[in-house]
Amino acid sequence: MTQNIYDDEEFFQGYSRLRRSVEGLDGAPEWPALRALLPNLSGLAILELDLPAGSLDVVYSSLALHYVDHLSELMAQVHRSLLPGGHLVFSVEHPIFTAPSEPHWALDAAGCKTWPVDRYLDEGPRSTDWLAKGVIKQHRTLASYINMLIGIGFVISHIEEWGPTEEQIAAQPNWAVERDRPPFLIVAATRR
Amino acid sequence: MTQNIYDDEEFFQGYSRLRRSVEGLDGAPEWPALRALLPNLSGLAILELDLPAGSLDVVYSSLALHYVDHLSELMAQVHRSLLPGGHLVFSVEHPIFTAPSEPHWALDAAGCKTWPVDRYLDEGPRSTDWLAKGVIKQHRTLASYINMLIGIGFVISHIEEWGPTEEQIAAQPNWAVERDRPPFLIVAATRR
Repeated sequence: MTQNIYDDEEFFQGYSRLRRSVEGLDGAPEWPALRALLPNLSGLAILELDLPAGSLDVVYSSLALHYVDHLSELMAQVHRSLLPGGHLVFSVEHPIFTAPSEPHWALDAAGCKTWPVDRYLDEGPRSTDWLAKGVIKQHRTLASYINMLIGIGFVISHIEEWGPTEEQIAAQPNWAVERDRPPFLIVAATRR
Repeated sequence: MTQNIYDDEEFFQGYSRLRRSVEGLDGAPEWPALRALLPNLSGLAILELDLPAGSLDVVYSSLALHYVDHLSELMAQVHRSLLPGGHLVFSVEHPIFTAPSEPHWALDAAGCKTWPVDRYLDEGPRSTDWLAKGVIKQHRTLASYINMLIGIGFVISHIEEWGPTEEQIAAQPNWAVERDRPPFLIVAATRR
C-alpha cells in the first residue's frame, strides 16, 4: 500500500516549512519549466478530485506520482478520463535522484561534488530520511515511465530533465549543483 | 567535426580485440533487447549506405550516434528517408554513462560500487580514455534524444535503459554491476 507520510507529524511540520510550502509556486524553481508544457487552460475541463470517463482536457500532477505504488493502474484511469487529444503533464523526482541506496552528494578526488548512482535498474521502494525517517518513494526508471504511458495509449510530446537555469542559479547559487544530476523529471503526453 | 577515432591505430587494435568484435552479435549482450524492438525485416527496404528520400522501412544504428556531432541534422535526414510508418531503432551509450567528467566506478562507505554522476545537464563533448587516449563522445541528456526525435516528427514507440538480464549475469557474473547504472540507451520510434 502507498505510504501516506503526510500523516506523520514530524514530516508534516518539516514539509510545512519548505520554501515551496511557504511561498507556493514562486518557491518551486521547476514551475516555469512545468508551466511551459501546459496547454492554454482557459475554458478547459480540468481534473482536481475524481476521474470522470472521457471528459477531461488536462490532467496535471506535481511531485506526487513517485509516491504511488501501482502507478500503471492510476495512469490507465487517467487515460480513460481524458478526451482524445487531452493532455497529461506531470513532474516526479528524477530516476537518477531516486535510484541510489543512499542518496547523497559525495566529493571526488578533485573535491568536486558527484551523485553516486547504484541500483538504477532495480525498481521498487526506496526508504529515505527526508524531513522524517522512513519516507517511502517508488523508484522507476525513466524508460518505465515512458513505456508505461505509451503502452496505455499516450503519445509522448515532451520530456524534461529539469535543472536550474543560469538566471535561477544567479539568484540561488546553491542550486548550481542540481545541474550535476537533475532532481526532477517532467513529462508531457497526449491521449491519441 | 566528428572525430574518427577508428583511424587511430592503437584504438583500432584494441577495438578489434573486444568480445563483440571477435564474436559479432553473440558477443553483444544488449543485442536480444535491441533485436526485440526491430519489426519483422523480411521483404523490407533497409538502409545500409546512403539516404534516399521517402523510401525506407527501417533505419538502424548500434552504438554509433553518441560519436556524432550535429545529430539533429542527421536525424532529420533519416526522418525524410523513411516511409510513413517506417521504423527507426538505435542504441547509444546511456547519458548516465557519458555524463561524468571522470567516468569510473567508485566504492561507497560500505564497499559497494557506485557510478558518480556529475555534469549530467551540461551537454557537449566528453574526452575519455577508452582503448586509446582522447576518444571524443557527445554527451546528450536522455530528454534531448527524445525531444529531438519528437521535434523532427517521430513518434516514440519504446525506450529501453539496457542492463543485463539474470540469465546474462549468470553466464557473465562481472556484468552484474551494469544494473547499477545502465550502459546503453535503446530507442524505437516511427515516422508519422
